[in-house]
Amino acid sequence: MPLLVVGSIGIDTIEAPTGIATDVLGGAATYFSYAASFFTSVRLVAVVGGDFPAEHRRLMESRKIDTSGLEVRPGGKTFRWRGRYSQDMNERETMEVHLNVLADFNPRLPDEHRNCPFLFLANGAPSTQLAVLEQMRSPRLAVADTMDLWIKTQHDELSRLLRRIDGLVINDQEAKMLAGTDNLVRAGRTIQAMGPRFVVLKKGEHGAMFFSRDETYVMPAYPTPDVIDPTGAGDSFGGGYMGFIASNGDSSPTSLKRAMAYGTVTASFTVEDFSLNRLARIGRDDIDRRFAEYRRMTAF
Amino acid sequence: MPLLVVGSIGIDTIEAPTGIATDVLGGAATYFSYAASFFTSVRLVAVVGGDFPAEHRRLMESRKIDTSGLEVRPGGKTFRWRGRYSQDMNERETMEVHLNVLADFNPRLPDEHRNCPFLFLANGAPSTQLAVLEQMRSPRLAVADTMDLWIKTQHDELSRLLRRIDGLVINDQEAKMLAGTDNLVRAGRTIQAMGPRFVVLKKGEHGAMFFSRDETYVMPAYPTPDVIDPTGAGDSFGGGYMGFIASNGDSSPTSLKRAMAYGTVTASFTVEDFSLNRLARIGRDDIDRRFAEYRRMTAF
Repeated sequence: MPLLVVGSIGIDTIEAPTGIATDVLGGAATYFSYAASFFTSVRLVAVVGGDFPAEHRRLMESRKIDTSGLEVRPGGKTFRWRGRYSQDMNERETMEVHLNVLADFNPRLPDEHRNCPFLFLANGAPSTQLAVLEQMRSPRLAVADTMDLWIKTQHDELSRLLRRIDGLVINDQEAKMLAGTDNLVRAGRTIQAMGPRFVVLKKGEHGAMFFSRDETYVMPAYPTPDVIDPTGAGDSFGGGYMGFIASNGDSSPTSLKRAMAYGTVTASFTVEDFSLNRLARIGRDDIDRRFAEYRRMTAF
Repeated sequence: MPLLVVGSIGIDTIEAPTGIATDVLGGAATYFSYAASFFTSVRLVAVVGGDFPAEHRRLMESRKIDTSGLEVRPGGKTFRWRGRYSQDMNERETMEVHLNVLADFNPRLPDEHRNCPFLFLANGAPSTQLAVLEQMRSPRLAVADTMDLWIKTQHDELSRLLRRIDGLVINDQEAKMLAGTDNLVRAGRTIQAMGPRFVVLKKGEHGAMFFSRDETYVMPAYPTPDVIDPTGAGDSFGGGYMGFIASNGDSSPTSLKRAMAYGTVTASFTVEDFSLNRLARIGRDDIDRRFAEYRRMTAF
């Protein structure tokens, strides 16, 4: 079943101990949609400027991502971000951010997108995420991501969003901030009690945790020795997660759990090169092979 | 089958965001042997001073831990440690350390201990760990723990130890230091190549990783919301790990993997109270119940 994602596309410059990548394709919705495209048909709603390279759009379309909802502002500039990773790559600092066309991104969904059964609201202003939700005709599963900025600046809007979505995907540090506790299990449960049916808490190289009213579980990250660039890992996780769920149209507890393993495996490819370079070299069979290996690894 | 542990017993004072525990029973060999005692018969070799409270010894003996190898120096003082945890309890600072009788701990194994088939060398000077190994009559499985201090001050002795043991259990930060890399998968593989048949890399609240020539795998920590005091979690993990292996006398890959799950679950109890308080309130059935829950959680 089709999966709609609304979020950012950007041009990134990444400084990591493993090298520097200048002006490469990035953005939450980019990683998400590319990762999800291995599982299901993806519709992307985002905004770019006239400077957005045609090759980037072609890369997305090569994965059959529907870019009919991609707004291009000829006079505007694409969102840009420059970040620097710490030596162990577990922390990163934003060195520069230019919102450009993202500053007044006001997504209008094409009519056929409003019926999409699966929706992912990639990280963005909760007010914008709510405005997207308003345009949807009762999706079967709506999941959102958020970040520290919105916890601080749009707390009320975020609270409203949490009561309207089925699932929240959130980083560990941001979960601690939102829940006001340093214990991740308590944080996950506290956020789940704020509204969503489930919370997926992303821990980067340490894996992910799941919280619903009835279930708590945790999965480790796939142990790759080749971490080149962690950028987009969380969004690729989200893409694999939602992509798998949408692919079989099943948001049962069993499906959500398997989806977490698929998200984990998909993200493990993303970090093995800069930008989408690694994902661009793999196919669904590579994901399935690593999924099988990951399952063997974690069974005891 | 019996399991021999050689290491430290101490009196700890713990300052954590959850409270302060003054002059409580601690030490690597203490946590290890208590945790292992749920699985197999444990023989403990350690040293304490005349100030060591009789109740602590009785607590160990209540779990049928063989303390005939416990050296008591009437004129000496027991090892003491005072530590303080950070707000999120993922870091701790040593505020005070008094080696006392541990300073010249020179373990002499009682003759019947030298035939013990399973040996754990808890954290201690590699020179001392080597001296213990010398006294053993070909154990079936010898596993050691180590720490940053020894990586810095006894690098040669540690290298020699690594070539003589079957397995090394080590913290993530210390593994990075020893291997000279920030990638934990690379660190684990690098250390394994230094000599031991396998390496178990402990990541605290993020679980543990395993490395042998043929296998790499990873398990998350059991997600407990009740983290009161992380002290001794790693040693309890080791105790559950080695205890399970010794209990069935099986160090096959399958047994080592299941052992990691038992170590994980055993450690999850330890952190739920100060000192050995939580472990003292549970039985093997509690461990088995949580093991079954952990297995359900991690299966997908």
